[in-house]
Amino acid sequence: MARSDGRADDELREVSITRGFQQHPAGSVLVSFGQTTVLCAASVTEGVPRWRQGSGLGWLTAEYAMLPSATHTRGDRESVKGRVGGRTHEISRLVGRALRAAIDLRALGENTIQVDCDVLQADGGTRTAAITGAYVALADAVTWLRAHKRLADPQPLSCSIAAVSVGVVDGRVRLDLPYEEDSRAEVDMNVVATDTGTLVEVQGTGEGATYTRATLDAMLDSALAGCAQLTELQVAALAEPYPGELP
Amino acid sequence: MARSDGRADDELREVSITRGFQQHPAGSVLVSFGQTTVLCAASVTEGVPRWRQGSGLGWLTAEYAMLPSATHTRGDRESVKGRVGGRTHEISRLVGRALRAAIDLRALGENTIQVDCDVLQADGGTRTAAITGAYVALADAVTWLRAHKRLADPQPLSCSIAAVSVGVVDGRVRLDLPYEEDSRAEVDMNVVATDTGTLVEVQGTGEGATYTRATLDAMLDSALAGCAQLTELQVAALAEPYPGELP
Amino acid sequence: MARSDGRADDELREVSITRGFQQHPAGSVLVSFGQTTVLCAASVTEGVPRWRQGSGLGWLTAEYAMLPSATHTRGDRESVKGRVGGRTHEISRLVGRALRAAIDLRALGENTIQVDCDVLQADGGTRTAAITGAYVALADAVTWLRAHKRLADPQPLSCSIAAVSVGVVDGRVRLDLPYEEDSRAEVDMNVVATDTGTLVEVQGTGEGATYTRATLDAMLDSALAGCAQLTELQVAALAEPYPGELP
Amino acid sequence: MARSDGRADDELREVSITRGFQQHPAGSVLVSFGQTTVLCAASVTEGVPRWRQGSGLGWLTAEYAMLPSATHTRGDRESVKGRVGGRTHEISRLVGRALRAAIDLRALGENTIQVDCDVLQADGGTRTAAITGAYVALADAVTWLRAHKRLADPQPLSCSIAAVSVGVVDGRVRLDLPYEEDSRAEVDMNVVATDTGTLVEVQGTGEGATYTRATLDAMLDSALAGCAQLTELQVAALAEPYPGELP
Amino acid sequence: MARSDGRADDELREVSITRGFQQHPAGSVLVSFGQTTVLCAASVTEGVPRWRQGSGLGWLTAEYAMLPSATHTRGDRESVKGRVGGRTHEISRLVGRALRAAIDLRALGENTIQVDCDVLQADGGTRTAAITGAYVALADAVTWLRAHKRLADPQPLSCSIAAVSVGVVDGRVRLDLPYEEDSRAEVDMNVVATDTGTLVEVQGTGEGATYTRATLDAMLDSALAGCAQLTELQVAALAEPYPGELP
Amino acid sequence: MARSDGRADDELREVSITRGFQQHPAGSVLVSFGQTTVLCAASVTEGVPRWRQGSGLGWLTAEYAMLPSATHTRGDRESVKGRVGGRTHEISRLVGRALRAAIDLRALGENTIQVDCDVLQADGGTRTAAITGAYVALADAVTWLRAHKRLADPQPLSCSIAAVSVGVVDGRVRLDLPYEEDSRAEVDMNVVATDTGTLVEVQGTGEGATYTRATLDAMLDSALAGCAQLTELQVAALAEPYPGELP
Repeated sequence: MARSDGRADDELREVSITRGFQQHPAGSVLVSFGQTTVLCAASVTEGVPRWRQGSGLGWLTAEYAMLPSATHTRGDRESVKGRVGGRTHEISRLVGRALRAAIDLRALGENTIQVDCDVLQADGGTRTAAITGAYVALADAVTWLRAHKRLADPQPLSCSIAAVSVGVVDGRVRLDLPYEEDSRAEVDMNVVATDTGTLVEVQGTGEGATYTRATLDAMLDSALAGCAQLTELQVAALAEPYPGELP
Repeated sequence: MARSDGRADDELREVSITRGFQQHPAGSVLVSFGQTTVLCAASVTEGVPRWRQGSGLGWLTAEYAMLPSATHTRGDRESVKGRVGGRTHEISRLVGRALRAAIDLRALGENTIQVDCDVLQADGGTRTAAITGAYVALADAVTWLRAHKRLADPQPLSCSIAAVSVGVVDGRVRLDLPYEEDSRAEVDMNVVATDTGTLVEVQGTGEGATYTRATLDAMLDSALAGCAQLTELQVAALAEPYPGELP
Repeated sequence: MARSDGRADDELREVSITRGFQQHPAGSVLVSFGQTTVLCAASVTEGVPRWRQGSGLGWLTAEYAMLPSATHTRGDRESVKGRVGGRTHEISRLVGRALRAAIDLRALGENTIQVDCDVLQADGGTRTAAITGAYVALADAVTWLRAHKRLADPQPLSCSIAAVSVGVVDGRVRLDLPYEEDSRAEVDMNVVATDTGTLVEVQGTGEGATYTRATLDAMLDSALAGCAQLTELQVAALAEPYPGELP
Repeated sequence: MARSDGRADDELREVSITRGFQQHPAGSVLVSFGQTTVLCAASVTEGVPRWRQGSGLGWLTAEYAMLPSATHTRGDRESVKGRVGGRTHEISRLVGRALRAAIDLRALGENTIQVDCDVLQADGGTRTAAITGAYVALADAVTWLRAHKRLADPQPLSCSIAAVSVGVVDGRVRLDLPYEEDSRAEVDMNVVATDTGTLVEVQGTGEGATYTRATLDAMLDSALAGCAQLTELQVAALAEPYPGELP
Repeated sequence: MARSDGRADDELREVSITRGFQQHPAGSVLVSFGQTTVLCAASVTEGVPRWRQGSGLGWLTAEYAMLPSATHTRGDRESVKGRVGGRTHEISRLVGRALRAAIDLRALGENTIQVDCDVLQADGGTRTAAITGAYVALADAVTWLRAHKRLADPQPLSCSIAAVSVGVVDGRVRLDLPYEEDSRAEVDMNVVATDTGTLVEVQGTGEGATYTRATLDAMLDSALAGCAQLTELQVAALAEPYPGELP
Repeated sequence: MARSDGRADDELREVSITRGFQQHPAGSVLVSFGQTTVLCAASVTEGVPRWRQGSGLGWLTAEYAMLPSATHTRGDRESVKGRVGGRTHEISRLVGRALRAAIDLRALGENTIQVDCDVLQADGGTRTAAITGAYVALADAVTWLRAHKRLADPQPLSCSIAAVSVGVVDGRVRLDLPYEEDSRAEVDMNVVATDTGTLVEVQGTGEGATYTRATLDAMLDSALAGCAQLTELQVAALAEPYPGELP
């Protein structure tokens, strides 16, 4: 049974990574996985939250959100509802945790990096696109900090980070699910991995179903191969000169 | 005293209007006034809010918001703060009121158009760019409704709407202020006008200063000329075929 | 077509200004424009908000609210709803901005004046009555500060401030609209002006209609004449000795 | 040791009850106990909350609040804080409970009476003044309902209700405490009683102290005598013709 | 007319007091009055809230809450609703006030004791069980502070505190009402008393009825006898060695 | 390097499962994993949320929370803060998802099961204890529904569910981490599995570290063995007669 967009089961959607999309943040990346588009910004502030002051350690935190117009049916705006939903909370925490695995907070020095991932268009895999794009924005923010001589150590990034979704759809293990597949997947897994293939986060969920350990293994094989390809695309994007002048 | 970006006092910034930026809403426009960039979406829902059901009238409402990463210094996310700020509230109401002046709600039939203006990058004049872009998104949403035969009357739009800021900076009346001028303007005015030059909304504020009626007149002259140019750019944008397939 | 209350088109409602209505605030004024009644208090605190400390500048801020029992149909209490509505936010900001135009914050010294405008009864024009009454409360609060030798400079008020509404009803430009006219006005404008006739704020809105520049001019003529009369009433009220002992 | 305002220990402050203070609610009373002033409104709505529909019973609920400018030092506005404080909640519940003791909800029919007690000036005893004034507003609202033939039974009020504070100050039992006494009372009690001298609510609290049963008895004696006098003042106020036209 | 559980009118339900229920708080007591079960914890923090720093005085505050699963029909969770209800607020304030009557805050020194009363199962009288159990937890917390030499004076407790409900049901004065009686009581009273029989708090409420002073007296007689028995049970519980090691 | 509590690396803490802890919910279980204690209640309501009515499907949802007194240092109460934290949200969603994997919602019929997991004492692994205990409460609630003939099909449970944590501490893979180990684990994983050893949820997170696939495999081996033991304990607990009478 073929995928509706004609891809092979282990094939990523078309990925694009545009650096310097916004002027103000130290890193700003527009990332697309197919029709999913996320604006990832890494803003730098001098100093750290009060509870961390004087520790010599920096801080990195992340917020994820979706524009109301990003989804097929318009969603309510969380600021108007007056509360952040559980899904939003959960993904914000995931993005922050994933990026903190890549950065040595002592080397960062007492600076705060605030990562914002705002989904402009949603077609499945928004959290994995967000992490993949946010790493590139983070790398640009670190370059900016280095250029401004504000790092405690010049190489705070210990690895690079990419993420992809994988799932079981129509009984087959498939990579990088669009909404049409994601919404009917029997199992859904998100994998965050480093450029050396080690794992940062694995979250696999049966959706009204359970799965065997063999299926888990097959999903991990596919996801790790996908992350390796995403890592290459990140490297290529970061090899380009920064578009326009640095913020 | 010249403007820092070299423009004449009565000159607009470079304006771009990109239709069909998002896939899901019936109208989706990315509008830029210089470095100010706003994503304007017009989403259509069948039916109207409960208090309006059975009236035969449609409804149009708007929400304005700013991405945290849009400003020079990152702003706090209103969803996380748990409340919408006064400025956000005020601009949301302005955008909705301005657009409702252009549409005959009886002709719209019992449909709701929800307009979302999300500022991706802020450099002054975000509310006027939002209104100018939102009108184009609204026009596309109306076309979509007409194509789907859901209008009570085929021509619900009675006029077009554009908006521009004008102010007194360095003692001179200047059009379309960027942040650098806006933040030190003595007087600040936003004008919303129709394609026939009639007024929809005039909001003129002395910023720690007051202004004479002669100054008000000069600002209105400049703003109305600016709106006329914006109207031409809207007409040109809408004359193009819709990019890609209709949502 | 005559007005329902028999007034001429350019005639104010009966205005009353009662100083010293409350005991505790440094200024406390009960103002009525016809059946609209607003309690305006100006409370003084030593010191300024944290972000302004050490600047040598004072601060003035305002909050506007309506008692649930003030309107024809009882309104919900915003404290119970847990959020301040858009209209409330907007008017609070307007009142604060208008009053700040009258006061030199450097002359005020590091004192904060908190203005509260609580509508006890609403019959149209609550925001303009609030501004007009609040200016008188502010003047009393400044007198109090001067008497207590807490001003950096003895004359922080650079002008006086009054406000009135004007609109187009039944095709005629009319001054100081009661609810019955306001609710069906085609155009609605609020004008805040100084005692020298300069403008502080002009907000003109077409309500489901647009208006010509000639109409704007006619409304401004009427509003400025109304503000001049209100200024005289403020002067007369302030010429009386303070009722009872100073707080 | 004499009281600072010269009253005898068992003497009420000067009480005034002004009916018809506002135009819109069916009952609107401005009540003063000395410098404490509360605006009590009883608004009538046809129908009852959803959980009570079809029961044939009416409903009465109350909200108490304080203007920020009512107190010696300005208080924060609860709508701005986004939550109703514990003290406000507690008094709102007390006022509603007390008034419901006076009214037969079956005789009221499926109507809702919403009582709002807004403190304009606070000098101790705001909750007891609120209850005393609110009963008069309730009586006027019932008269209004009777005149509009909307009662299930013409006499829903089974008794009248008044309330007063009493406490131990300077070792003496004193009636109707102003703020100066209330803030240093060793024991503080609020008593709500009917016109026949039965009790509706007794709340006696040791403030960092405890009290004997003999003290409780002495306080009750004083409070019941005070309530009897308040009842007479209510009867006198209600014997006057309604000021102006009925709402 | 007999009570449904066979008790005499002046008889308490079976009471159990288990100390050391939790490991972390300095005092932790599981108290039951019949089927009503409340977990009372007294947590100690060094220092006091900012507004009290440097006063030499300690602070004690309390929070009461009910598990959603504690009641016959599951209740909504207040954290999910985003606001604390009026009843919860009111009882939290009552518990804190009652316990502060037993402790000399100067002797406590600049320490804060936070009391949490969480109802695990509700069958009437949760607030009085909470106060009775919380006193025991407080006593253990004071012992802990003494053992850690953190008290300003070794005997901060000036008395012990117990509480019980009493009401008029089926025309009879009855002690310690379970839900079945409480829900149909004509009068409901909560009494907090000390080990010497003085009163801390008396709250008597007619529920859609009023009551005579003679009834008040009879209820007080019954409640004070009940409190005396509860005091004995507290003394017995505190006479046991602390279960397990001190926290 | 030995574990501080002397356990083998692959050994569970002492587990206890007490059914019928509360009277009102259809299922109520007190579960302990060592010092971690969670009260799990499964409450049954007739009917389903509005968006699901008429579908023939039941609904199950879960809420997780922690008592303020459950942790070493007292935590703030989320109801008082007015918002549910990200961690709470995330675990609530996890518990609900896990339990829904065990139940056929069509067989449940249009009933709602609300699961509440309230942590009475926290010492690591609260979410896995919660899931393990909640399954037993769910089984009792299903028995109750069957006894009351309210199920669409008598066997809605398709499997049983248990959960355990596993992590890398001191370089070793260890099962069922207490707080002391959890807080310094390099990798932390939670595994939810069925009685047949299939997976429901796998969440593995590097804490400032990354992990190899071999480590993932070793953690899964340990966790699945742990879940198998927990399943046996659940079976044994459910084999006992229900304590006391059914609710």
